[in-house]
Amino acid sequence: MAITVVGSVAFDTVETPAGCRERCLAGAATYFSLSASFFTDVRVIAVVGEDFSTSEQAVFDAHKIDTTGIQHAPGKTFFWQGSYLDNLNEAKTLQTDLNVFAGFEPRIPDAYRDSQFLFLANIDPVLQRRVREATPQAKLVAGDTMNYWIKDHKPALLEVLKGLDILLINDTEARMLAGNNNLVLAARAVMEMGPRMLVVKHGEYGATLFHKAIPGAPESHTFKSPAFPLEQVTDPTGAGDSFAGGFFGYLASQRELTPGAFRRAMFYGSVMGSFTVECFVTERLQQLTREEIDHRFKLFRELTHLD
Amino acid sequence: MAITVVGSVAFDTVETPAGCRERCLAGAATYFSLSASFFTDVRVIAVVGEDFSTSEQAVFDAHKIDTTGIQHAPGKTFFWQGSYLDNLNEAKTLQTDLNVFAGFEPRIPDAYRDSQFLFLANIDPVLQRRVREATPQAKLVAGDTMNYWIKDHKPALLEVLKGLDILLINDTEARMLAGNNNLVLAARAVMEMGPRMLVVKHGEYGATLFHKAIPGAPESHTFKSPAFPLEQVTDPTGAGDSFAGGFFGYLASQRELTPGAFRRAMFYGSVMGSFTVECFVTERLQQLTREEIDHRFKLFRELTHLD
Repeated sequence: MAITVVGSVAFDTVETPAGCRERCLAGAATYFSLSASFFTDVRVIAVVGEDFSTSEQAVFDAHKIDTTGIQHAPGKTFFWQGSYLDNLNEAKTLQTDLNVFAGFEPRIPDAYRDSQFLFLANIDPVLQRRVREATPQAKLVAGDTMNYWIKDHKPALLEVLKGLDILLINDTEARMLAGNNNLVLAARAVMEMGPRMLVVKHGEYGATLFHKAIPGAPESHTFKSPAFPLEQVTDPTGAGDSFAGGFFGYLASQRELTPGAFRRAMFYGSVMGSFTVECFVTERLQQLTREEIDHRFKLFRELTHLD
Repeated sequence: MAITVVGSVAFDTVETPAGCRERCLAGAATYFSLSASFFTDVRVIAVVGEDFSTSEQAVFDAHKIDTTGIQHAPGKTFFWQGSYLDNLNEAKTLQTDLNVFAGFEPRIPDAYRDSQFLFLANIDPVLQRRVREATPQAKLVAGDTMNYWIKDHKPALLEVLKGLDILLINDTEARMLAGNNNLVLAARAVMEMGPRMLVVKHGEYGATLFHKAIPGAPESHTFKSPAFPLEQVTDPTGAGDSFAGGFFGYLASQRELTPGAFRRAMFYGSVMGSFTVECFVTERLQQLTREEIDHRFKLFRELTHLD
């Protein structure tokens, strides 16, 4: 099944203890698309500027990602600059230039109308809601958000949550959104806001899938995936979006959305996140093969399974 | 197989967001012994004061813990007072009175001489080393330590590490001991100091077992156990010692120390830690049954296994 994703395509400049990269192809929708493209067809809705050249387009093309929905606007592409020199677990934003993203009006190409999987990457909840309402055919809708929207745009975000099946956020965001420091209680409170599933990402400690209690199977609603132990974390940018791409991409590739499919999706999410952080920005995803993904999935199983 | 444990038996006063308790039976050796007693015979080496009464003795007796090695000295038992009001993940120490512990000279009863499993709980590394040297028959030796000894008593601690098979510490301690922020590299550096295995405890995110690379099985040397998702963490005191008791107690109960036994031991460690934090100090461990332990072990498996 094809996934439609709406989000940012950007140029990033990052510095980490391992070095720096300038103006590289990045953005949540880019990480998500590249990651999900190893599992299923992906269609992107985004906006880029005149500095988006054939070499960036070629990255999407090489992964057979449908970019009909990427609008080309006069001006420059969204730009973000961040540093991980102080803390490899949290970026310090040095510069954000919205550029063409400031006037972004998502438009859904007719060819995307049959996408049954929709991913709302981290953008203004007003835009997320508009895309959700314009894609009534979507049978599984997942989304991301961030502290900024939780803190200053909560009413708009709450409207988005009502239309989500799955929300993917990190620990801090889950606790902030729920106003509860206990993660189990926070998860329950977030699921009361709309999504029937919540994926909480713990960075280097993996991720937890919470599911609203299923009658008759009260204890089957939580699943934990580890993070792959890496000797070198080069650049954490995009780890969460890559997780989302692996998770949702795997689900979209499945004939049936069984509990087992969600468990495997969690592992594939962790696998994709672990590849991304090995190199700068999208470098690792650009070079990755499905064989490497399946090999690491097998290692993940060995890391966590008793026998 | 019986385990001998040396460490502190103490009275703790704790305050947490859930309430407070005054002068309750606690201490690393107490948590460890109670936890391990569900799996195997446990023998304690410690010192207590005149305030250690028959009601505290009864707790050990009820779990068939051999207390021949607990010395009774004039004065008061080791006392610790801590608060988790600011941060449920880290205690703020309000008071530490070493009392009789200041002059502690561990003595190993003859009846303990055949213990093949030795656990050196978190005490002065000089004492840990003395006990290790006095128990040459021990075939598996594990130990704990803390930031204070790593920071200010490193030479003595390094001597202890040479005699350990397994070290159990938390993330911060592992990174501090190795001087490396990457956990995989830190684990490797710590294992170069002596122990062939390292268990790193991640608090609410579970624990990781690192093992020196085995020739022919280079990827089989890491194992992750989750932490049980709890709706209420009442008091985190003793979680690490309870983990150690479950981990080491389970190992001591096994006929053969296979890789599978170590994996299951990690799960039992997490299970025991999760029970301890549900109630204040040792209250939960005192009331626990083996049936509850095995039930939660089964839930842990479901939380992490793909099928």
